[in-house]
Amino acid sequence: MNVVALAGGVGGAKLASGLSRAVDAEQLTVIVNTADDFTLYGLQISPDLDTVMYTLAGLANPDTGWGMHGDTWQAIDMLKNYGMEPWFHLGDRDLATHLLRTQWIDEGIPLSVVTRQLARRLKVTSTILPMSDDPVHTLVDSDRGPLPFQEYFVRYQWQPVVQALVFEGASEAEPAPTMLRRLETADTIVICPSNPYLSIDPILSLRGVHDVLLNATAPIIAVSPIVGGEAVKGPAAKLMKELGIEASAVEVARHYAEFLNGFVLDSRDAALRPQIEAMGMGVLVTNTIMQSLDDRARLACEVISFADQLRPEKLGGCKLDA
Amino acid sequence: MNVVALAGGVGGAKLASGLSRAVDAEQLTVIVNTADDFTLYGLQISPDLDTVMYTLAGLANPDTGWGMHGDTWQAIDMLKNYGMEPWFHLGDRDLATHLLRTQWIDEGIPLSVVTRQLARRLKVTSTILPMSDDPVHTLVDSDRGPLPFQEYFVRYQWQPVVQALVFEGASEAEPAPTMLRRLETADTIVICPSNPYLSIDPILSLRGVHDVLLNATAPIIAVSPIVGGEAVKGPAAKLMKELGIEASAVEVARHYAEFLNGFVLDSRDAALRPQIEAMGMGVLVTNTIMQSLDDRARLACEVISFADQLRPEKLGGCKLDA
Repeated sequence: MNVVALAGGVGGAKLASGLSRAVDAEQLTVIVNTADDFTLYGLQISPDLDTVMYTLAGLANPDTGWGMHGDTWQAIDMLKNYGMEPWFHLGDRDLATHLLRTQWIDEGIPLSVVTRQLARRLKVTSTILPMSDDPVHTLVDSDRGPLPFQEYFVRYQWQPVVQALVFEGASEAEPAPTMLRRLETADTIVICPSNPYLSIDPILSLRGVHDVLLNATAPIIAVSPIVGGEAVKGPAAKLMKELGIEASAVEVARHYAEFLNGFVLDSRDAALRPQIEAMGMGVLVTNTIMQSLDDRARLACEVISFADQLRPEKLGGCKLDA
Repeated sequence: MNVVALAGGVGGAKLASGLSRAVDAEQLTVIVNTADDFTLYGLQISPDLDTVMYTLAGLANPDTGWGMHGDTWQAIDMLKNYGMEPWFHLGDRDLATHLLRTQWIDEGIPLSVVTRQLARRLKVTSTILPMSDDPVHTLVDSDRGPLPFQEYFVRYQWQPVVQALVFEGASEAEPAPTMLRRLETADTIVICPSNPYLSIDPILSLRGVHDVLLNATAPIIAVSPIVGGEAVKGPAAKLMKELGIEASAVEVARHYAEFLNGFVLDSRDAALRPQIEAMGMGVLVTNTIMQSLDDRARLACEVISFADQLRPEKLGGCKLDA
């Protein structure tokens, strides 16, 4: 049972950690958005990769979803003494990740290999795969002009009004080694409840990914990041409105409809089921909010079982149901 | 009363901080060795500049001489969790200095300007001048092969046997802006009790520095880093022996004799006075060991007064004597 999940930051990381319990952790590959990556103080920072890695390693800060639990802020505090106004959160322990990644990237090691090394050393047995070893950068066209992603997202707390999104470098970037093959040979493909436009679209924009998903034999299931017309976390709903799209789970389903076999809808949105079924996909209605570790595993388990219903021959469902 | 001091790390920083009290702090320029600078985890690290800056800012760790007092080690601790064996000491607050320097250097700002900005923000009113904005790197030819300076010094705790020292880049490097002029117009030039071969020679190796010192109108005074045949701190005595030079204050005086007007000898070495006077320079015998802040100011005060004795017209001596 090979499961491939596409993920961005916190929401994606939570479902990925559930999936790593619902199937054997080694059978899970998480393809992670890297269009949010950026350089700060000379350091190579990959926020989504770190969030997924820390979450799978059990090191994530449970209050924020990002960063390491129990981290300290001495370096940032000293930057403030230097008169800086640091807007990006760099914990002292978290800094070690950026230092090591930067060192290895400077040595010419590809990001996918760097990520594998970091994750292994944190005893993560699932595969965390950055979407590409090549740089891709989300540029947010906004009412404050074009903004690099982290300035939009962290510095300005996603308050600028978005007019368009550009994934710079995406047309030249190669998907990470093994990524397309992992999608082709997956038994289940899960699109995590990450921001469709900011987190998942950069992955889909890479050469070959869309075609592989269209031709995939595995059921492809998306979990809605929009519940009751609001984003569970982050700017998804606000962004949809700014792009002229109704902030509704229906529109998320429509966004992926071309290759989607199943859609996981929150119970509060149960009334939307017929509209989504009418797009020709299966719908699972359940509680999609992941507050506890058990919530993650339960939702992941339901997603795995749902996938099993959507394919002709059953592969056996969630490990936790056994 | 313009005082220019040449300094390396801890010993130089201590006397420099004394000098910043013995004269008006704004009248002091400290020219600092940068041949120890290196890149680690992508960060631009300037150990001697930081030691001088932290010391003048009153932020230095009094136990080690380097690093910041009260610093924490979360980042290093996490690097160890990643299976690394970090041999260079990077405190969490100290990291802020490297992060900011790296960011500014990456933006194309010269090291001398970066240093001025950092020092100002730490309320240092003396001028800290890196010897050059261009890269110079000490390479230590040793019985373990050629070693970059920090590997010799920190990683291997200066245990390799030194065969020769090479200052890579020194012949192409320009002295930092204003450096030669500051030496030409100085009222007193002090060579701090830093390692003559590892800390001071890189400064002297830069184009024009030697000539400016030969032609300087200011008295040039050196304080011996060798006391009783031993280095006060660090590898100076061991290194001298390895290079076939007797580890003695006499040899330090001889090293600088060409341009030296006065030499400060520790009381324990009083018997060496005639040998050094025979080289044609004045000798001040005093306690040169700086344990407390007051020791630094007292020694600096004596150096300033000694310089005043060595010039034809008196400029007024140490501020603290007034």
